[in-house]
Amino acid sequence: MSLTPISNIGEFSLIEKIAQEIKIYNNEKVIKGIGDDAAVIKPNIDMVEVITSDMLVENVHFDLSWMPLKHLGYKSVAVNLSDVVAMNATPEHITVTLAMSNRFTLEAIEELYKGMRLACDKFKIDIIGGDMVSSNQGLIISITATGSVEKENVVYRSGAKINDLICVSGDLGAAYAGLLILQREKRTFMANPYYQPDLMNYEYVIEKQIKPEPRLDIIKKLKELNIKPTAMIDISDGLSSELHHICKQSHTGCRIYEEHIPIDIMVSNIGDEFNIAPLTMALNGGEDYELLFTIPLDKYDLVKNDDDISVIGHMTDEDEGLYLINNIGEAIKLTAQGWDSFCHDKEQI
Amino acid sequence: MSLTPISNIGEFSLIEKIAQEIKIYNNEKVIKGIGDDAAVIKPNIDMVEVITSDMLVENVHFDLSWMPLKHLGYKSVAVNLSDVVAMNATPEHITVTLAMSNRFTLEAIEELYKGMRLACDKFKIDIIGGDMVSSNQGLIISITATGSVEKENVVYRSGAKINDLICVSGDLGAAYAGLLILQREKRTFMANPYYQPDLMNYEYVIEKQIKPEPRLDIIKKLKELNIKPTAMIDISDGLSSELHHICKQSHTGCRIYEEHIPIDIMVSNIGDEFNIAPLTMALNGGEDYELLFTIPLDKYDLVKNDDDISVIGHMTDEDEGLYLINNIGEAIKLTAQGWDSFCHDKEQI
Repeated sequence: MSLTPISNIGEFSLIEKIAQEIKIYNNEKVIKGIGDDAAVIKPNIDMVEVITSDMLVENVHFDLSWMPLKHLGYKSVAVNLSDVVAMNATPEHITVTLAMSNRFTLEAIEELYKGMRLACDKFKIDIIGGDMVSSNQGLIISITATGSVEKENVVYRSGAKINDLICVSGDLGAAYAGLLILQREKRTFMANPYYQPDLMNYEYVIEKQIKPEPRLDIIKKLKELNIKPTAMIDISDGLSSELHHICKQSHTGCRIYEEHIPIDIMVSNIGDEFNIAPLTMALNGGEDYELLFTIPLDKYDLVKNDDDISVIGHMTDEDEGLYLINNIGEAIKLTAQGWDSFCHDKEQI
Repeated sequence: MSLTPISNIGEFSLIEKIAQEIKIYNNEKVIKGIGDDAAVIKPNIDMVEVITSDMLVENVHFDLSWMPLKHLGYKSVAVNLSDVVAMNATPEHITVTLAMSNRFTLEAIEELYKGMRLACDKFKIDIIGGDMVSSNQGLIISITATGSVEKENVVYRSGAKINDLICVSGDLGAAYAGLLILQREKRTFMANPYYQPDLMNYEYVIEKQIKPEPRLDIIKKLKELNIKPTAMIDISDGLSSELHHICKQSHTGCRIYEEHIPIDIMVSNIGDEFNIAPLTMALNGGEDYELLFTIPLDKYDLVKNDDDISVIGHMTDEDEGLYLINNIGEAIKLTAQGWDSFCHDKEQI
């Protein structure tokens, strides 16, 4: 297949080519999409709008040697939608701004947008605008996502109360486990270019790393269960860091229990292979894009048997601090490491 | 003064430090600003929302050797507001996403935000969110701006009709003239570091380059005059390129007249110094962030004596093409160069 350098196309033709493929799902809301100085949308009456922006930088947030462009497109949309969902809102629109060096081809950009369109199709949201510019080096993706929710149903980080239950969706540590595998494969491949990676056994964790899903299903489920979380955040930097955000803004402490933290068996196995405690991966690995939320104690019966929601602890008085109770009953202070200063030392969880 | 490397601070503290300085002007609209997964805003009833995103990349869109960070902050907001204004809308909120390498200090980022806050203060708009990430190289600024306008008052690129008058605000070519001066000063300075630039005589054009203003005043004035433009666009890539956008989307041709194109005397003088036709700078220089708009013929009397609006030509039938009539009566085909393929050859305007 012959590839088309973007320098052969020019910005306007590139935007036109990409825009052609973009379908609008909500015609009654999107008055004008791509193609003018700005997009025009009709706000929902009686709703408030949420708006969030995120940026992904090549070789900081992703590595194209193991991240397929289509997945990168999907992920870049997904992580933004995850922020919208974490406000208890339904995502509606995104704008996409790309900076790319001239090593990228039209076909590469189309592949990236293919992944973005997949995410848009899955969640029925619209790409309504953006910008494409050149960079000296690498690829930078900046996305702004909007969504809407009834004013009384917005969930902030700040609403948790003492004794509220702390819940997480799905399981934790898998995205980081996937990253470990992908980085190892890359090292092996660089040492021996004839090496054929066998990733079959690691599908789940690799998918969590390269194709995370915003948990729109969880906020829908909570609505059906008639549960409004008191506080919520999405887990991008690791459970520990996000708990710090919620506790700080809610003026509470917390206790979570090692035995209740959901960790997939594959994550445990990879932890053993790499000599990293799976708990550390769950607490500080990040990029799981699961939801961390608190609910009133009296809602316990509604979630206790849910396969996709784990109750991992409860909120305490602010003065009591943030603690993990491990499997032998020790209380260990939680520190907010976040993924970029991720630490392998068990002492420092 | 001692400088603080951003690596000493950490992302959350940096965001907190920056957020502290950010004032909210529209408290009844901004339900939640910086500090959660997303901002929450209250839409205007009976209005539509416009939304636009732009990205500025170091050494592609700006050069920190002559662009002070404070001005860069101001400009990065201004160019986004300009897109909102070009829809005939009033800007309201922005989100700001930055990627920066670790050569930047806290003080540098504060300086950048100081400029952004100046623009926000001038236009009474709110910074409601964003992201800060690290980059391997340089500074990248991505801003999304929103605004609102009554649905019936949105102005698109596509509404121009045959015989409508073509108008521009302010004057053209000055931002490019400013760029030429700044680039020359940089070359001189690099050859002789003891050189003290004397930019006094060039203040106007340098200000147009480093501190452009969105023409919110013009859309207010048109409203007062009871003129709704039939089409509008802001001039970021040069008059010629923007005329192509309007004509293409409105399915018209156009004729503009060299004698009516507003060019400041300083731009003419700089053109002479650099041996570039001032007309070429006006047509293809770009970055003026003036408004290009069309109005019905019967509104001529309302604008003809306005110091800040020039009627430069009129729309024609699509088949008649896009032409400039020069001062000796020749019709020259307008080609859309845009600023990045800016060409010094008079033949190719």
